[in-house]
Amino acid sequence: MIEDISVTFLDNYKDRTLVSPIMVEGLPGIGQVGKLVAEYMIHMLGAKKVAEIHSIYFPPHVIIEENGVARLVRNELYLFESDHRQIVFLVGDYQSTSNEGHYLLTDCYLDIAAELGVGRIYTLGGFGVGHLVETPRVLGAVNRDGLRPEIEAAGVVFERDEPGGGIVGTAGLMLGLSASRNIDAVCLMGETSGYLVDPRSAASVLSILSTLLNVTVDPTQLNARAAEMERVIEGLIEGERMQHDEELSYIG
Amino acid sequence: MIEDISVTFLDNYKDRTLVSPIMVEGLPGIGQVGKLVAEYMIHMLGAKKVAEIHSIYFPPHVIIEENGVARLVRNELYLFESDHRQIVFLVGDYQSTSNEGHYLLTDCYLDIAAELGVGRIYTLGGFGVGHLVETPRVLGAVNRDGLRPEIEAAGVVFERDEPGGGIVGTAGLMLGLSASRNIDAVCLMGETSGYLVDPRSAASVLSILSTLLNVTVDPTQLNARAAEMERVIEGLIEGERMQHDEELSYIG
Amino acid sequence: MIEDISVTFLDNYKDRTLVSPIMVEGLPGIGQVGKLVAEYMIHMLGAKKVAEIHSIYFPPHVIIEENGVARLVRNELYLFESDHRQIVFLVGDYQSTSNEGHYLLTDCYLDIAAELGVGRIYTLGGFGVGHLVETPRVLGAVNRDGLRPEIEAAGVVFERDEPGGGIVGTAGLMLGLSASRNIDAVCLMGETSGYLVDPRSAASVLSILSTLLNVTVDPTQLNARAAEMERVIEGLIEGERMQHDEELSYIG
Amino acid sequence: MIEDISVTFLDNYKDRTLVSPIMVEGLPGIGQVGKLVAEYMIHMLGAKKVAEIHSIYFPPHVIIEENGVARLVRNELYLFESDHRQIVFLVGDYQSTSNEGHYLLTDCYLDIAAELGVGRIYTLGGFGVGHLVETPRVLGAVNRDGLRPEIEAAGVVFERDEPGGGIVGTAGLMLGLSASRNIDAVCLMGETSGYLVDPRSAASVLSILSTLLNVTVDPTQLNARAAEMERVIEGLIEGERMQHDEELSYIG
Repeated sequence: MIEDISVTFLDNYKDRTLVSPIMVEGLPGIGQVGKLVAEYMIHMLGAKKVAEIHSIYFPPHVIIEENGVARLVRNELYLFESDHRQIVFLVGDYQSTSNEGHYLLTDCYLDIAAELGVGRIYTLGGFGVGHLVETPRVLGAVNRDGLRPEIEAAGVVFERDEPGGGIVGTAGLMLGLSASRNIDAVCLMGETSGYLVDPRSAASVLSILSTLLNVTVDPTQLNARAAEMERVIEGLIEGERMQHDEELSYIG
Repeated sequence: MIEDISVTFLDNYKDRTLVSPIMVEGLPGIGQVGKLVAEYMIHMLGAKKVAEIHSIYFPPHVIIEENGVARLVRNELYLFESDHRQIVFLVGDYQSTSNEGHYLLTDCYLDIAAELGVGRIYTLGGFGVGHLVETPRVLGAVNRDGLRPEIEAAGVVFERDEPGGGIVGTAGLMLGLSASRNIDAVCLMGETSGYLVDPRSAASVLSILSTLLNVTVDPTQLNARAAEMERVIEGLIEGERMQHDEELSYIG
Repeated sequence: MIEDISVTFLDNYKDRTLVSPIMVEGLPGIGQVGKLVAEYMIHMLGAKKVAEIHSIYFPPHVIIEENGVARLVRNELYLFESDHRQIVFLVGDYQSTSNEGHYLLTDCYLDIAAELGVGRIYTLGGFGVGHLVETPRVLGAVNRDGLRPEIEAAGVVFERDEPGGGIVGTAGLMLGLSASRNIDAVCLMGETSGYLVDPRSAASVLSILSTLLNVTVDPTQLNARAAEMERVIEGLIEGERMQHDEELSYIG
Repeated sequence: MIEDISVTFLDNYKDRTLVSPIMVEGLPGIGQVGKLVAEYMIHMLGAKKVAEIHSIYFPPHVIIEENGVARLVRNELYLFESDHRQIVFLVGDYQSTSNEGHYLLTDCYLDIAAELGVGRIYTLGGFGVGHLVETPRVLGAVNRDGLRPEIEAAGVVFERDEPGGGIVGTAGLMLGLSASRNIDAVCLMGETSGYLVDPRSAASVLSILSTLLNVTVDPTQLNARAAEMERVIEGLIEGERMQHDEELSYIG
């Protein structure tokens, strides 16, 4: 009988003990900001995959990898370790397809966090503002009042009315559900249009998260991707303007 | 493992015993009428929070409070006590997102009511009529025939064909599901357009509920809010009329 | 804890034993044909209510009765008894709101049928044809090949390609799920436009069902209602034709 | 109490033992390609029905067969046996109506596969390309890297970016969920427009599957059906072109 949610730790992880690691969640969401940051950090830090999560609350399909092998959609845990810091990354293909599933999956993620002795969680996301943002700010939320000064000192903005609608999905629920478990949690949201994948917003979040984690991550590749994306967007806008001018010249 | 519905009583409530208290439900709904009334009474009477309810049937998100702290969406219980009257208020951010959840949550509310020895329940709501109402009536429904004379004497209207579609959600189900538990329940519905938050309708419900509860609640602030809202609406209507006249003058 | 589905037999029914009764299902559906027939028979035969069914799979609301008392939406069982015939009617406000609920509720109805020793089930419904039907035929389906001759002899039509899409909801599932319980089941579907409540179609079904049950039910009131409805429709069509002619005379 | 999913083996199957049979899944899907192939093979090979699967995750309705007998929608298993090959076909009316049901049903299909000792599974489907395809290729996916050479050798194409969106539903999940059970699984997808039932695409899949299974299936009838369908489509296109020409001649 299939489990509603199953967590499978890889063999290479069996005998490891962690000392108060940090968990960083970057699942798909607005502007893919959280996913971009977490997957970039995994790549740059060379974090190792330690677990897979499957669930009937994910969409019912498989993804075909480059070698032609199909695999279930899933979430994954990656572990990065340096002398002074252990980080567990939570990334993946999807969040839940149902409301109830969001609660049940997040509760499972926190079971894992509790088991690993996680002392703090950072959840990452985008905050959609409906227009292009040149210098995206990073908005914050915490699950305990005392966390705020440290986070603000790192450059995170706490706006009274933003985000007005709260935080939807895993990035939000991990804050809400971790409070009763006495795990500190912080959400970092990069401003983004909400229409496009946004590496520029991700770079803003990465910069602040690196500071907070006291971990160095070279942002060059992410910045390059952002610059390239901006060239593409400018090209699209320019093309539209030219077409518009042409149409006007017909009329005139 | 997360519970589908969890009820957490606060410490300050641990040793209290209630004597046949009244329960007043005012969750979000049409015109936010019930919510306005219940939250206004909590505010004016200085009722104390005694419990929180969380559930996987609520939307999967958190609300960020003014201090930047995220909290799960929730329902809450507040307790007011005077010499002659104890009132338990049920208020909150949301009702269920699913049909089944409506039944399961209401059943939980009634478990609480039974445990507290609640003798009567008032559920509050709006009755949408599709147009602005200057002097909103308060329509009623009961879960036992014998309750009606007392409620009618307080000024509540029982119309044969209203509300034709019945009462949707918690305000309705609490009547339906409490009957078999032998708890009396009354629904009070203020007439409202259904398009806007309606403090005028809430004031009508408040007036009657105060009488029924034999509790004095100064309506000044709620009336002021209603008056202010009406000025805003009149401004909008006037603005539209002027624009319309201007357009006609162009044509003429 | 609320049950997903609860069946409550009334006291007046406690000590009754039935001898191979017939069950007749007439829940809401296309043209309300089944509901009209079953409720008309209950009314004309003076059948007595014997049970109520409530469920979290029904819509989450209450219905307000004429005396102002709210009651849960529900299904009901009524019993008719004559010297030679016992009939259990299954009627109600709604069918399930979810796909899974349809299966679970129907399984519950068949548990009741099995417990009562029901030997045969008639499910009633409308068959939507998309246009007004002057002399509606009654189409049939059975859950065992051997039942067909008797049903055809009563005037029921078995068309090879109708209904092509099968039978949706309780009227269909009761046939499908009763087969493995060795209970005979027959579905009678009156042709109907599908756009309006259709007492004419109901009268056709009633006529055949009376024959099959060998029970006399005076159709006068149902025919009167059908005639009245047809006058209303003719009036609407005539009105539209006149408006159309007027518009043409303007043009001409 | 009804089971969420029930599997009923027919009596004629009771005492059979299979030796590492192959399972072929052909449930409804894009272009009905998988269904066409599997049902055609069952027909041509004279495979015998051995089991039925019913579930509350299927749509809540019955299908009326030619003799007027209604039956639950269902999935079915058929068995073909020759000297050197045993094949279990999984076919049926529907896939799941819910996301969770897709996972639960597929898990059940794999329970059956495990119980029967199935050594390899072929799942069949269409790959929608959005336009008519004259010579449809057969795209593939596997659940283990080592399977690919054999499948490619049979003419199946493994494209790096196709299908980009992965494989939705049972055909995909059977690959994903069988990996952890150590059952080999291969998905074969015939290119198809995605707009019409596509026997031509099915013929392409059949040709390759016959090779892979080392079973001869005369494709004549399927090819005839494809040719007939193409004549109908050509007629439609021709008719539209003529109408277009006529309209132009009016203008000219």
